[in-house]
Amino acid sequence: MVNRIYNFSAGPSTLPLTVMETIKEDFLDYNGIGASIVEISHRHQIFLDILENTKKLFRELTNLPKNYKILFMHGGAQMQFSAVPLNLISRKENKGSYFITGRWGILAEKEARLYGDTEIILDGKTYEYRKIPTFNNRKLDKGTSYAHLTTNNTLYGTRWNSFPNTWEVPLVADATSDILSRIMDYSKFGIVYAGLQKNLGVAGVSIVIIREDLIGNALPQTPKLLNYDVVEKQNSLPNTINVFAIYVMNLVIEWIKKQGGVLEMEKLAKKKSDLLYDVLDDSSFYKILAFPEHRSLMNVTFNLKNETLLKKFISNSEKEGFFGLKGHYLLGGVRASIYNAMPIEGVKELSSYMKEFEKING
Amino acid sequence: MVNRIYNFSAGPSTLPLTVMETIKEDFLDYNGIGASIVEISHRHQIFLDILENTKKLFRELTNLPKNYKILFMHGGAQMQFSAVPLNLISRKENKGSYFITGRWGILAEKEARLYGDTEIILDGKTYEYRKIPTFNNRKLDKGTSYAHLTTNNTLYGTRWNSFPNTWEVPLVADATSDILSRIMDYSKFGIVYAGLQKNLGVAGVSIVIIREDLIGNALPQTPKLLNYDVVEKQNSLPNTINVFAIYVMNLVIEWIKKQGGVLEMEKLAKKKSDLLYDVLDDSSFYKILAFPEHRSLMNVTFNLKNETLLKKFISNSEKEGFFGLKGHYLLGGVRASIYNAMPIEGVKELSSYMKEFEKING
Repeated sequence: MVNRIYNFSAGPSTLPLTVMETIKEDFLDYNGIGASIVEISHRHQIFLDILENTKKLFRELTNLPKNYKILFMHGGAQMQFSAVPLNLISRKENKGSYFITGRWGILAEKEARLYGDTEIILDGKTYEYRKIPTFNNRKLDKGTSYAHLTTNNTLYGTRWNSFPNTWEVPLVADATSDILSRIMDYSKFGIVYAGLQKNLGVAGVSIVIIREDLIGNALPQTPKLLNYDVVEKQNSLPNTINVFAIYVMNLVIEWIKKQGGVLEMEKLAKKKSDLLYDVLDDSSFYKILAFPEHRSLMNVTFNLKNETLLKKFISNSEKEGFFGLKGHYLLGGVRASIYNAMPIEGVKELSSYMKEFEKING
Repeated sequence: MVNRIYNFSAGPSTLPLTVMETIKEDFLDYNGIGASIVEISHRHQIFLDILENTKKLFRELTNLPKNYKILFMHGGAQMQFSAVPLNLISRKENKGSYFITGRWGILAEKEARLYGDTEIILDGKTYEYRKIPTFNNRKLDKGTSYAHLTTNNTLYGTRWNSFPNTWEVPLVADATSDILSRIMDYSKFGIVYAGLQKNLGVAGVSIVIIREDLIGNALPQTPKLLNYDVVEKQNSLPNTINVFAIYVMNLVIEWIKKQGGVLEMEKLAKKKSDLLYDVLDDSSFYKILAFPEHRSLMNVTFNLKNETLLKKFISNSEKEGFFGLKGHYLLGGVRASIYNAMPIEGVKELSSYMKEFEKING
């Protein structure tokens, strides 16, 4: 029997056990070819089939409209903080608009300033990012090239429950931490992108889902591998792709399909997060960070009364077989990341541990 | 017994069997933590130790001078085709100089034109890249910001046997296909970079070895993750690093150390390539592409008299248990890539196959 703990890491994060077992099983000899999938050319038909299958299955799971393309690019979501303005900002009046609901939005807006003007159209700062402020879309400048938001904020444990209407301004979403965990109508977005290392597999690559008419507006100084037009025309293979990450994503989304698809993932996410929020709501011992109406279903963040109790909570949790509960270094506290691959049993055990810890230390 | 063939793929390419077995063995449970190395935070001490150890061991194996930094960046060598000019071209008169000895040099020079002037200071085109022309370094403009070369040309099977003296102009080398297979004096270079997927592991990341005084010259429009200064200051962790690739590289270079280090790798490369070049030199049936004085020790390229024989050679080789011998799609012919991890037994078997094939079809 292999030793596996409940791993609540925020990303890279736990993957479905059956997926991990398949990777292990096939690692020295993929499909009987006598070599590993990580040892063969990204232009070999064996890998091209995996790449095609991954895109096909993602389309199926998301009911993706035909006029959207799927690209894979190096570097995770932060590389897209550069790629989005490089590829879109010159569409209209060289301006990008940003919804700031946490750290990733702040970094995305900062990066865009290198390439044009930016405008902050919503800022959760006054609420310490514990809620998403109300947005009045009549304030949106029609001359802006795009409006960018972060669907779920891993640090603060908040999320957009429904997305703003930005009219004809293309809405660009960083969905790294909740992609394929909720039903999304992709036709409402210009671009949805995500690093793969939370709900889609391992680190190093981002998926970019883009409405095809938005391709072809790159600034002249766009590095070749960040140019959506180049990446799209070359089937995400302008250079050597991260073969391992695509292979793992393919297995992860096959697993999601077997679980019943995105709707089932959404129901499960609701169930799992409720287990933890119920404990927190019933308690005056723990303090939830997020406002009730914007609580994340992926990252449940809370704090304890003081540093001593917090340290004890974390250190005891590790003895109990939990891993990765320490909050982000900028924020402290506790963060339980419960992406698709976290089994409900793990969340149940954590909720029991929390109740028990409160009973003893409360 | 696991089925493993001799895999001559040009990259991604074969990895040492013991390394592959370790990855497989530890895949579900790294070091008894109860989670995989791909499932934990890149900021966790467990991963930071791997990162530090990888850098330390690389320094040891290359005898790297203290004033050089080691960075890991997303995207493989082609991302550096952009990063090098973005970070260096403004040092002097906004100009980069290029030695063109094959396809990768061509692409690197083309990319640099986005950011300044470029000058081609050597071009193997008239020799169809079958040799490296002689370079007269008195022709080098002292006002150029850097001079860029490709140490080994995977497509054409050629390499620089010794490197040009560019005086005070920093020499920048793309060493993707022969890094750690030959003794190199890093103090002669400003930057040496390499994608990891040939001699250092799996695809998706490049290593950048840079003389520290060259850091800090990035153009203002440099994307954050391509900025050497940002990457260096943040210990290669400005965002989520490709954890798996670093972990694999660590195992690969530990394996190199166990084999006796870079000098042993160089001796082995000479031995292995000699086995194939001897067959080719003794034959009028096969035609070597590279001129004798610039033959690559990593990629042995040759052709047959006609397409029918070539097809038969490839298809029979696959039946015999060889994989990946088909040449690059732009060049055709045969390419046997024999990086560090290719065992000498595989090369011996290939040379026997070549002799046998000639006997029957010659």
